[in-house]
Amino acid sequence: MLTMTVGIVGLGLIGGSIGLALRDPNRRIIGYDPVAKSAEVAKSRFCVDEVGTLADVAKADVVFVAAPPDSVVSVLDQTASLRGESTVVTDCASIKEQIVEWANSAGATWFVPGHPMAGHEKSGAKYASAWLFRDARWILTPVTKTDRASVRAVEALVKIAGAKPIRLDAGEHDRHVAVLSHLPHVVANAISAVAQPLTHHEIGAGSWRDVTRVAGAEPVLWAQILGGNSLAVSAAIDSLIEELRTAQAALKDRDRLLTLLHEAREIKENQGKRLPTDSEA
Amino acid sequence: MLTMTVGIVGLGLIGGSIGLALRDPNRRIIGYDPVAKSAEVAKSRFCVDEVGTLADVAKADVVFVAAPPDSVVSVLDQTASLRGESTVVTDCASIKEQIVEWANSAGATWFVPGHPMAGHEKSGAKYASAWLFRDARWILTPVTKTDRASVRAVEALVKIAGAKPIRLDAGEHDRHVAVLSHLPHVVANAISAVAQPLTHHEIGAGSWRDVTRVAGAEPVLWAQILGGNSLAVSAAIDSLIEELRTAQAALKDRDRLLTLLHEAREIKENQGKRLPTDSEA
Repeated sequence: MLTMTVGIVGLGLIGGSIGLALRDPNRRIIGYDPVAKSAEVAKSRFCVDEVGTLADVAKADVVFVAAPPDSVVSVLDQTASLRGESTVVTDCASIKEQIVEWANSAGATWFVPGHPMAGHEKSGAKYASAWLFRDARWILTPVTKTDRASVRAVEALVKIAGAKPIRLDAGEHDRHVAVLSHLPHVVANAISAVAQPLTHHEIGAGSWRDVTRVAGAEPVLWAQILGGNSLAVSAAIDSLIEELRTAQAALKDRDRLLTLLHEAREIKENQGKRLPTDSEA
Repeated sequence: MLTMTVGIVGLGLIGGSIGLALRDPNRRIIGYDPVAKSAEVAKSRFCVDEVGTLADVAKADVVFVAAPPDSVVSVLDQTASLRGESTVVTDCASIKEQIVEWANSAGATWFVPGHPMAGHEKSGAKYASAWLFRDARWILTPVTKTDRASVRAVEALVKIAGAKPIRLDAGEHDRHVAVLSHLPHVVANAISAVAQPLTHHEIGAGSWRDVTRVAGAEPVLWAQILGGNSLAVSAAIDSLIEELRTAQAALKDRDRLLTLLHEAREIKENQGKRLPTDSEA
């Protein structure tokens, strides 16, 4: 008994993983990607039951738009004109203010702006995983006009995918991800560049491997993410530089250094309570 | 048949892990820690076969000094006067220039300055692991006067512990660890401080967890490490700030941002070749 059809527009790492996470005999998963090769990889990895046109996919009960940030608004415009009468649409873009502007101006009550807090330094459905969203937060930033039943429909699927839905204001979201996601990527690239003159990178241990893990992540995608959230990311970089200068000034004063490191431990312990635990990670 | 005795001075995470990594029916492991409770934890976790006085431990065939950075020179002075006729001594301090100065001025041909590139955000023998050094680099910075047989004796044990010995000049070592180890710790603390004003730390995903993993590491130890290598760490912070400013300036210019991110990918790929693989990590 087929209970619903889920559409996925954009069959990369995120779209492919949504498909894998939602696969069930009771759900038909239909996907579309403008790049035939991407659709093929997603199909061959069983991320989708079938591949269709954008018009086919837009008729699903719930459509996930997992397109690159720069393309989301244009895909939403197309989907708006192709969607079925009761189709609910959500997106996965990592910046939400401009998406929410679109929702407001389009009066799209059936659209639920969303952002799964999960990813990987590798891109493409080749790396898609049914486990990518397990215990991750999936942020939804509905606006006043957003239909409540639509929000509930998206939340239900997000939970099935293993994630924990959470509602946030779009501006709050963008400031949070600037620090919690975009800044770590900027830092990973910057610190790797600092190490360039060294001759023995192989001596780097766990802390080096971790701080640089996401360095070099997909340039085209990250140019869109960082460029799309440039104001908040720039402010986050300013704050980080201020903290680095504070640490630098303390290097020569042992008491001050010790105080700073004790504060850092307190901060970590406080934030740790709210961070995913190892079993969640 | 007992082939050798290994002494360990300082039974914390590193000393305890050395004991566990070297345990063997043919080796007697004897440990000393000025804090009775630390020695007790190490003994109860079978990191050492027995606990003795510094004088007992200093008579071993090979002695590992795994004391906090600030105490190493004083422990080495004491060990020098207590050691057996053919005892080889090595240390584990994460900064090497001042240790090498000591070796030169003491004319300690039997002393091999060393630094295992392994650690953990938790300290104490409670967290010691026989696997801590597996596939890690263990840097040795012998000086001209260092006895070659002593270097070989330390290298042999380092390999038994599962690590890969590598020889470096002490100054080279200190500049490398400033970037590859000390800077990641400074960054982890700084970026955690940047996130303090946020209300939803729990939305941070893998990149956030990784960049902050070592935040809040043992304040007393890290004040000694960062303070002891302050010049090189300060220079590394300057370089990082320069790279962050470059990234910040590129945020508003999509072409420049894309170029920068492509460069970052190239850097990561080049360094990746020389980084530990997942199976080594």
